[in-house]
Amino acid sequence: MENHILQRIEALRSKMVSSGFDAVVVTGTDPHSSEYPAPRWQQVRWLTGFTGEAGDVVVTASHAGLWTDSRYFIQAAEQLSGTGVELHRTRQSDSVYIPEFLRREAANLGEDRSYVVAYDGLCMSAAAVDEIRQALLPLGEDKFELVSVDNLLSPLWTDRPAIPDEPIAVVPDDMTGESTAQKIDWLRSCITAAGADMMLLSSLDEIAWLLNVRGSDIEYNPLVISYLLVSETSVKWFVLKDRDRGRLAEVMASRGVETLPYGELELSLGETSGATLLVDKSTLSSSVDALLNRFCDDVKYATSPVQLRKAVKNPTEIASQRKAYIEDGLAVEKFLYWLECEAAENVTEWEASERLTALRAEIHGYRGNSFENISAYGKNAALPHYSTPREGSAQIERHGLYLVDSGGQYLTGTTDITRTVPMGECTPLEMEDYTLVLKGMIDLSMAQFPEGTAGCQIDAAARLPLWKAGRNFGHGTGHGIGFWLCVHEGPQSIRQNFLSQPLLPGMITSNEPGLYREGFHGIRHENVVLCREVQETEFGKFLGFETLTKCHIDTSAVIVEMLTDQERAWLNDYNAEVYETLSPSLDEDICAWLREKTRAI
Amino acid sequence: MENHILQRIEALRSKMVSSGFDAVVVTGTDPHSSEYPAPRWQQVRWLTGFTGEAGDVVVTASHAGLWTDSRYFIQAAEQLSGTGVELHRTRQSDSVYIPEFLRREAANLGEDRSYVVAYDGLCMSAAAVDEIRQALLPLGEDKFELVSVDNLLSPLWTDRPAIPDEPIAVVPDDMTGESTAQKIDWLRSCITAAGADMMLLSSLDEIAWLLNVRGSDIEYNPLVISYLLVSETSVKWFVLKDRDRGRLAEVMASRGVETLPYGELELSLGETSGATLLVDKSTLSSSVDALLNRFCDDVKYATSPVQLRKAVKNPTEIASQRKAYIEDGLAVEKFLYWLECEAAENVTEWEASERLTALRAEIHGYRGNSFENISAYGKNAALPHYSTPREGSAQIERHGLYLVDSGGQYLTGTTDITRTVPMGECTPLEMEDYTLVLKGMIDLSMAQFPEGTAGCQIDAAARLPLWKAGRNFGHGTGHGIGFWLCVHEGPQSIRQNFLSQPLLPGMITSNEPGLYREGFHGIRHENVVLCREVQETEFGKFLGFETLTKCHIDTSAVIVEMLTDQERAWLNDYNAEVYETLSPSLDEDICAWLREKTRAI
Repeated sequence: MENHILQRIEALRSKMVSSGFDAVVVTGTDPHSSEYPAPRWQQVRWLTGFTGEAGDVVVTASHAGLWTDSRYFIQAAEQLSGTGVELHRTRQSDSVYIPEFLRREAANLGEDRSYVVAYDGLCMSAAAVDEIRQALLPLGEDKFELVSVDNLLSPLWTDRPAIPDEPIAVVPDDMTGESTAQKIDWLRSCITAAGADMMLLSSLDEIAWLLNVRGSDIEYNPLVISYLLVSETSVKWFVLKDRDRGRLAEVMASRGVETLPYGELELSLGETSGATLLVDKSTLSSSVDALLNRFCDDVKYATSPVQLRKAVKNPTEIASQRKAYIEDGLAVEKFLYWLECEAAENVTEWEASERLTALRAEIHGYRGNSFENISAYGKNAALPHYSTPREGSAQIERHGLYLVDSGGQYLTGTTDITRTVPMGECTPLEMEDYTLVLKGMIDLSMAQFPEGTAGCQIDAAARLPLWKAGRNFGHGTGHGIGFWLCVHEGPQSIRQNFLSQPLLPGMITSNEPGLYREGFHGIRHENVVLCREVQETEFGKFLGFETLTKCHIDTSAVIVEMLTDQERAWLNDYNAEVYETLSPSLDEDICAWLREKTRAI
Repeated sequence: MENHILQRIEALRSKMVSSGFDAVVVTGTDPHSSEYPAPRWQQVRWLTGFTGEAGDVVVTASHAGLWTDSRYFIQAAEQLSGTGVELHRTRQSDSVYIPEFLRREAANLGEDRSYVVAYDGLCMSAAAVDEIRQALLPLGEDKFELVSVDNLLSPLWTDRPAIPDEPIAVVPDDMTGESTAQKIDWLRSCITAAGADMMLLSSLDEIAWLLNVRGSDIEYNPLVISYLLVSETSVKWFVLKDRDRGRLAEVMASRGVETLPYGELELSLGETSGATLLVDKSTLSSSVDALLNRFCDDVKYATSPVQLRKAVKNPTEIASQRKAYIEDGLAVEKFLYWLECEAAENVTEWEASERLTALRAEIHGYRGNSFENISAYGKNAALPHYSTPREGSAQIERHGLYLVDSGGQYLTGTTDITRTVPMGECTPLEMEDYTLVLKGMIDLSMAQFPEGTAGCQIDAAARLPLWKAGRNFGHGTGHGIGFWLCVHEGPQSIRQNFLSQPLLPGMITSNEPGLYREGFHGIRHENVVLCREVQETEFGKFLGFETLTKCHIDTSAVIVEMLTDQERAWLNDYNAEVYETLSPSLDEDICAWLREKTRAI
């Protein structure tokens, strides 16, 4: 593996020399700023061997570096070993990010010419290019050059996969609670309010939500690679690729949507001259941004209104998600029963993961997993985003902690759940950590807060018990979750970063504090919660959380004395509710087992 | 009173007509952006009768408005009644601030000429003028005019007080822990690092800290009205007014500081041509900003490094503050004993306030109060910044809650403390509110958090118990406190606003959640805490708080069952420590009383 990597980086360097590039930036995303890129756009993986979900690369004549965050520090260090690619840790107090790295390189050029940075403009957001430009500008405009090369790696990557072109599902309006036409009408009013004539959407989950369509072009995310151009009189969906799709075109036409080839976006933009076009720069590729500025009279950049509207689920979506979490909880309970009572002594992480997927696949409406299962025993769980190897994965022993983070895509919604399972006897430290993380998860579940509160203002609720014990975790506490869409979505989050987006009733967010001790164990307790208005007093409206996840929390590793009375009551109530909700649908054996597992402590 | 106000506003309007002004902005600050202006600069009070500490005014031909925040809503509504001055509430979700108000007025002008906004450039920060300019710019540069008139109100305000000129104390180095020369050396290194030749300081507490001087030009704040110009070779202090101060000039000269008349700043700036000058725009008046840009070759704007350095107390200051809080606590305990055991049945809020001040005045090194005592019984305490009237203040009855928020200035430091005192039987709601606020105060006191955490990231610790009960308070939880300086200082704070300044070891901050029920009662529990490093683990350094305030918290209004075991233990430990610390210095009677008051619950 390492040899391939060295060869690829050397091949890139040769190309850099012949093209006169001092640095090449390779990002881990696709032309739509998707979180998970299709294989065609897994350029960082191809170039460096790093398989984490977040990472960007810079190659210069003397340096190759990968930038990633704490979720992947351990994994990256392992995967980059022997490749010569250096790990740059992000989100640390002394992190130096790519724009600043390039500025330093350019400042040290030592020659009287411009420093040339090349990138694939299709796979780099206009905002990211701007950041690099802003960092380099103080050197003087003549001291650097930014060169965009569409599909920059393709000449080296001879077996590069094609743009995906998978079947598309059109979702009936009664399943989404709002028709395509209603959504388009609403978006048109936003376009008008923004003083624009049309809007280009490039974010795939926004397009899927707006058109009530789902696809499978990207693993785990039910998305369709496409662009959408909405004007007062037309809705143009740039999606058709090689194959004829008469039936799809017909159905979409009945919804007022014209289907066009993916590659014809440029052509259509050429016809928009004189128009004022609205676009969200944060998900816009630099190459398409350049097209817009070439063809449109005026380009207005603004946060897409679809993002927030999509995050606030409607009553149909909420009711549907509630059901999805019950079905998903039943599958996970069956899995946990199997793991404790039926699995072989030497069952591996991979086998367990496969078993869980098989149980989810039995659910009516299952459409795949919502992300790659994390099935990690013992010290492997200390990697928050451990990727369970198909071959040679660890055995799950009958002591210590096993962590399983997984989720499903269903016609009825998207799920995400983490359970940390005591597999037998646990060490005092494992129990202490298990209990502290649980306190954080419970405290956030119980939190109530005024209307207008942002996630960063209540993130501490999940961390204070850990902090008090001198412990912490390096990832966010909560991310938004889509409705049969991406398992990670914005704009809300619950984390330390100062993001001003308030939590709103109808938003669905994860609640997943953790704790990771390299070489020992990893713990994460994750429920998914629905934000709801819970109280109105003379002091205003107060919001809180309804827990959607229905799956018991194992109390055998809980140090009961460390819980407050309220935390203990919450835990007992939660487990009782899980039993009550799920037991009617479970076989007698599992039911009896679950009754024991949910007994009050 | 109201008649005076109407006359003054009409007089201003006449002047506006003759000068061609459409709007006049009058701010509640002085040329140094001080929080408490000297009487000369209490322009808002003179013009509107509003006596709150924060308020700005706009007068147009048809409208007079006062902008202030929730601390003063009730007070402002009362004081503005009958004056025709309308209250504009700030920090509300739908607040319209002055720049936007002016933009709307200007947009509605309906005449083909510029909209003219006048202001006193001496009393308005350059930043505030910028905000107005930015708001008006979208109308077009020719659609508005901003006119700065130094001392704009003076022609109307015939008996306007003079610029204060009180005696100045030079503090020995062993009391401050760092000499003037050391501080100047440090500042020079900052000036050089910023690529500047000199720095102008206009913030009075920064000047007092840097020069180790204290004054009494401003009530409650031991400050000296002055400017300071520091270059590589000179330190010019523009401070002398009418009187000769040979002795001061001599002492300061021995510290390398040249004293010059306050009015000669302009003259000296005229000699700086060619220099690059560093200045903090946030405390710079618009008029002085204009001077700088007239005379200096280059003006660099940056946050003054003095602010942060001053906020992180050195070991001498910390040791001294610890003592000040013990002395202050003794005075408050004597006061509370007197109130419960000795005061007349019909004692008034004013009499109690006077008694407290008299007890503080007995302390060696007392230099006045650090702000106006808030002595408020019952529903009066629902005004978070109630101003106790000298005449006709309410009687403190022998039931319900009495709130006293007060502090002293001492040679050894600055104190701030609020106690809410159960005066006898309390209603269940009073006890519930009392207990909830106390839980918040205790939870924040116990909080521990990673190095790098900002106040807004732990503010929720003090609010979660209130939020959970559908209650909240509209002010910040904590403000920085100076060392024999301002009782409110930055840059840190503990509040909901997203301010990125981390809490650092050595910072002294208040911890004062509250709850206010208009017409019923007000509660605030305030201790002052020192940020310290408390633990270092594999997860990093963790900080926490040492409570400096030493004064018991009355447990008679506490609903014990509402406390967690940890909160109860904290409260009992705290009261026990107060008794242990203070009892050796108290008379037998008070000692016996305090033993009872601090008995564990």
